[in-house]
This record gives sequence, C-alpha cells and structure tokens, in this order.
Amino acid sequence: MLNFEVLQMDGKARRGRLQTTHQMVETPVFMPVGTQATVKTLTPEDLQEIGVQIILSNTYHLYLRPGAELIERAGGLHRFMNWPGSILTDSGGFQVFSLSKLRQISDEGVYFNSHIDGSRHFLTPEKVMEIEISLGADIAMCFDECPPYPCTYQEASRAVERTSQWARRCQAAHHQEGQALFGIVQGSVFPELRRQSARELVDLNFPGYAIGGVSVGEPKEEMYRAVEITAPLLPDEKPRYLMGVGEPEDLLEGVARGIDMFDCVLPTRLARHGTAYTHQGKITLRNATYAEDFSPVDEECPCYVCQNYSRAYIRHLIKAGEILALRLLSYHNVYFLAKLMENIRSAIEKGQFTDFYQKFYQQYKF
Amino acid sequence: MLNFEVLQMDGKARRGRLQTTHQMVETPVFMPVGTQATVKTLTPEDLQEIGVQIILSNTYHLYLRPGAELIERAGGLHRFMNWPGSILTDSGGFQVFSLSKLRQISDEGVYFNSHIDGSRHFLTPEKVMEIEISLGADIAMCFDECPPYPCTYQEASRAVERTSQWARRCQAAHHQEGQALFGIVQGSVFPELRRQSARELVDLNFPGYAIGGVSVGEPKEEMYRAVEITAPLLPDEKPRYLMGVGEPEDLLEGVARGIDMFDCVLPTRLARHGTAYTHQGKITLRNATYAEDFSPVDEECPCYVCQNYSRAYIRHLIKAGEILALRLLSYHNVYFLAKLMENIRSAIEKGQFTDFYQKFYQQYKF
Repeated sequence: MLNFEVLQMDGKARRGRLQTTHQMVETPVFMPVGTQATVKTLTPEDLQEIGVQIILSNTYHLYLRPGAELIERAGGLHRFMNWPGSILTDSGGFQVFSLSKLRQISDEGVYFNSHIDGSRHFLTPEKVMEIEISLGADIAMCFDECPPYPCTYQEASRAVERTSQWARRCQAAHHQEGQALFGIVQGSVFPELRRQSARELVDLNFPGYAIGGVSVGEPKEEMYRAVEITAPLLPDEKPRYLMGVGEPEDLLEGVARGIDMFDCVLPTRLARHGTAYTHQGKITLRNATYAEDFSPVDEECPCYVCQNYSRAYIRHLIKAGEILALRLLSYHNVYFLAKLMENIRSAIEKGQFTDFYQKFYQQYKF
Repeated sequence: MLNFEVLQMDGKARRGRLQTTHQMVETPVFMPVGTQATVKTLTPEDLQEIGVQIILSNTYHLYLRPGAELIERAGGLHRFMNWPGSILTDSGGFQVFSLSKLRQISDEGVYFNSHIDGSRHFLTPEKVMEIEISLGADIAMCFDECPPYPCTYQEASRAVERTSQWARRCQAAHHQEGQALFGIVQGSVFPELRRQSARELVDLNFPGYAIGGVSVGEPKEEMYRAVEITAPLLPDEKPRYLMGVGEPEDLLEGVARGIDMFDCVLPTRLARHGTAYTHQGKITLRNATYAEDFSPVDEECPCYVCQNYSRAYIRHLIKAGEILALRLLSYHNVYFLAKLMENIRSAIEKGQFTDFYQKFYQQYKF
C-alpha cells in the first residue's frame, strides 16, 4: 500500500505525508543510502535515534551480493538487516550504467559484467521486477536507462524512449501487494525530452515519480533547471523523488521546486573522508587546525556526537585510523541532513520556507 | 582512591569488589582494551550496555599519538573519550619491548623509535609516571622490563632486578590523588625469579599487583604455571591482575588460580578477522557454511547482536567489506567475555565455581 497526501504548500514547497507498508514518512524527506543492506557503520537503532524514516538500498549491489534469493529466504530486506522503517530500492539502472563493465544494451535489456567478480549478467525490466519483489521494499523503482552527462540529444532521446518502454514492461511484470512501483523521468538536460518522458510516464499512472539522470556530473544549475522543468509536469497528488541528491543546498533547492524525496550517499561518504557538515559549512576534521579544538563538531547541533565528543577527539580517531571516527561522523552527517529536513518541514508548515532558505544561505559557507 | 575487598572465596577463586575513583568494579573482571582511547568500533554507551565496568588503555600509544599533554588539556582520558567508568593504563613497558624499533635499554630508561613515524623517544620510570598522571586513569601501572619468550635465566633475572628498581622509582615519582599505582611481577617461566620479583614488589606495598611477562608467546601450560606460582605470593587483600590474558579458557584458569583482573585485545581483534565466540567455541563467520544460516551468532547469547542479526547477515557484511560487521562482532565478543565473567562471579558466590568450570569445558570446543 502507498498513500500520499500534501498537507500544506508554501510557494512550490510541499509538506506531505507518505504512508508506506512499514512506516509513515513525513515529507520532504532525505533517505540515507544503505547500498549493501546497511547504512555504512550505523545500526537501525542509530537511524531511528537520528529520526530516519526511510532508507534507500541498491538492487544492483544486493542482486550481485548476497543475491536476491538469499534475502528473500531471510524473509526480505527489512528482516535481513533488521530495519523496521520504510525502504525504497532503486532499480540498478544507474549502477549498471556507472559501475559495471562490458555493457551491451538492447531494447530487450542489458548485459554487463559484475564489478565484483567479472561474472556475466543479463538484466531486463521483468528480471529487475522479480529481484525487487524478492527484496520486498516498500517502494520499488522501474528499470531505466540513465545516460551519462554529457550526452547527445539523440542518445538522450533514445534513453527516454527505452525508459518508457521498460516502464510499461515493469508495470506489466510488477504485481506485488504492499510494494509501490515508481516511474523514473529521464531526458538529460533537454527540456523537450524531459517533457516527453514525463508525459509518457504520467500516462502510465504510477503511484509516484522520480526525476532521474541528474547528479551524474552536470553543473548544479543544469540539475536545478531539469527539476524546475520536470516537477510541474508530475501529478500534484503524487510524491516526487529527486534521485541521488544531495548536498544541503540541493535539498533546499529541490524542495523549493516541489520535490518530496531525496537520497544520496554523501553524508556517509564524506564521513569516511573525515568531513563533517556544520551550520557554517563543511569542515575537514583531519586538518591540524582541529588538533586541540575541544568544541563539538557543530556548536548548533543537538546530536549524540556533538553532545559527547570534541573535534580534537574525532580528529585523533581519524589520524589513528580508528573506525569509531567513521561511525561518529556518519551519525552526525546523517543527523545533520535529517534535522535539516525536519526544519524545512517545520518552516513550510509555518509558511516561512523562503525565510528559512535565505537564512541557510546567509550562514552556510561554500 | 582505591579500595578492594574479597567478598567470598571458592577454592582459590575470589569474588571481590574494587572501588576506583570512577566506578565500583565487580571482580573477577575482564577489561576490554581501548588502545588508542577507543575500544575499537564501540562507543562508551555500547560498553555500558554490555556491562563493561573498566577498560584498559595503552600509555605507549597515547603518548605517541595524540600525546599526553593534549589529553591532559582535554581534561584527561575519561573526558577525552567520554568514558565514565574506570580506566587502567598500562605503562608502555610491554609495547616498548614488542612494538618499537632500535631499542636501547639501560638502568636509566629506554631509548626507542616510534612505530608510527620513527621519531626517537626516551622513557624513564619518572617520565612514564608523568605521562600516566596526565592521562589520569584510575589505575596506573609501573614501568617494567618485559623480556620476550623464550629468554635465558640471566636475561630474565636482569629484567626482574630492573623492574624492581624501576618500581621503586615509579613509586617515588607517583603522587597523584585518585590514581592507584600497581606493581608488575616479572620472572618469565622461572619459579625462583617469580618468587624474587613478587617478594621485592610486595615489600614496596603497592595497592595492587599484576603478573606480567605472560601471554608473550609461551605455551599455555607455562603461563598457567607462572600464575600458579606467583598468585599465592601476592597479598590476599589486594587485587591481582593477569596482564594480556585472554581467551575464555584462560579467564577460567586464571580465576581458578586466584586472579581478579584480566585484559586482552582478542575480542575486538578476532571480530576484525570475522571470528565470533560462542558457547560451543569460536566460529569463523566468513566461511561459506554460514551463507544461509539465519540463526544468531550464538543461540545461548542474550546480547543485542544475537537478538537482532543472523549469521548470514553478518557474513554478508564481512564479505561486502562493511564496517558494521566489525562493530557487531566486536560488540558480541566483548559481551561474551563480560557475560562469562558475570557468570563466573555468580558461580563463586554460590560456591559452584568448580561445577561451572567443568561445564564450560564440556561445552566449549577448541
């Protein structure tokens, strides 16, 4: 089951509520990424303490390892990883085109070599639906063709056509109680193709829509423009998900353009590089300047890490190669984005989103 | 302050209570090792949930990185790492002799090169006391000479003499309210030298004594024999600490010979190699045999990990290189030893230690 309701609007920003099989999700929402059935370094209890309501997991990775059948036999992904909240699985489309090797793509599907062991695989829309049903997420995504940036108009156009064909095949193959299937709009940076893709997918009447083919290396302005063009073409009463985004400023820009859902590996990836979000911008804790800085990572942050540890301690852990550094920074960074979304929701409720947006940019340094 | 009381005995096994400046410690106790101001992968909250009362931290490592002065400026080790329980710091004697390079030892002290950056250092008993006072643990250890195994009688004899001299100098240099200083008995595998070392140190009237120079590569039988000889020579009313030990069976054997305190890196080190303790013995979760084993790590274990995750899930995390695997296994392994000690304490209280000891060996496979 899936039920979505827009509770309030402030400009184009939407305050909504998404009821999935497992959990009510307050939107706009940021979904941390648990690529391999774990949000790196964190437990489900950590995520709940942080206030995470829904996570994303990667079909491509789980299909290759440990395999969808194994996860199905474990009772599905929720049970396998012990996560009681909502899960969205992507379709592997992006990964097949970005990670795998020796790709051969046809209308039927995609041949590729595993990035893990080089083994040969063939994914079709039907096969992806089978895998996503085995994983058992609350929300599944259609198998799409995600072209790189930059690409020619012709390439983008072919990807749009194929994505629409595959969306039809996914829809035909997907019959699963309790799992909603979202369509993905492609079209790269070409307004005409974005419009075509949105129109063709909206005709299929999916319960939700994603904007894909963004955050693939294009300048931020291009990404914002693609969202600006696409979002208004999607049904008002359905959730809109901007894939693979983003940075704090991207979340704000997305919400300002009517986006309800986001996902990104950045908070945990930055943590592994010793970088932390703060209200003043990102800081690299590895730097010597923090060696004797006994203040918290972010003075304004009420999270567990900022309440209990100093920059100097976390820097020591990083320099000493201690895993706890990655764990504490992952916790803080995921919290930072979760809290940002909570504040955004609250601002929309009060009709103060523009004000919040401006204050963020006054404080946050790039 | 330090206060120790033997509440009950069962054979040579002692059920006691050690009051340190920070926390009451129920003995016999196992101290997990937080080498670099963190018990690898775990937070203080994890340790408290596990029931850990006291941890060990390594003076040698903290002196080299981040430096004792920095930790002193942070408000001491407890505050730096946010650990409210008790801490014991070793003296660096063992590490100087096992990790560092280009050692030059004299009666005055030890020159050595850092294993991190090759920088040259000189540690004396007085300098080590200064460092341990800066770290501010509840219990500090005397700087000792820890000879390797095997070593000649002459080498062991010289180490005993030097350890006694250094113990006198440590005692003279150590004046620190709230921190107790323990002596370390050396003597390798030579009963006569163990007796000499114990006699000389007991004369100095330390508030507690460690048996050092064990778990340095000697056969287990040799280690047990060294404990058997040494423990009865130490004052009944003072805590006895067996350094660098150990495995579950070593804890039992130590308690059976009158030991009150233990420390060892094994539970967290084994975790990093994908190995878990169970009531049936150690298992290597990396093995393919656990790929679809949806049972907990240890059926009899009530810990957080065993209540929430399967062997198959943890194996997947190991194979996928996910840090959560190390975190979950570290948690379980430390819990396993903490729980073992709790059960040992309870058995002593009931006068059933021999029974408990026999049952352990019936179940635990080597």
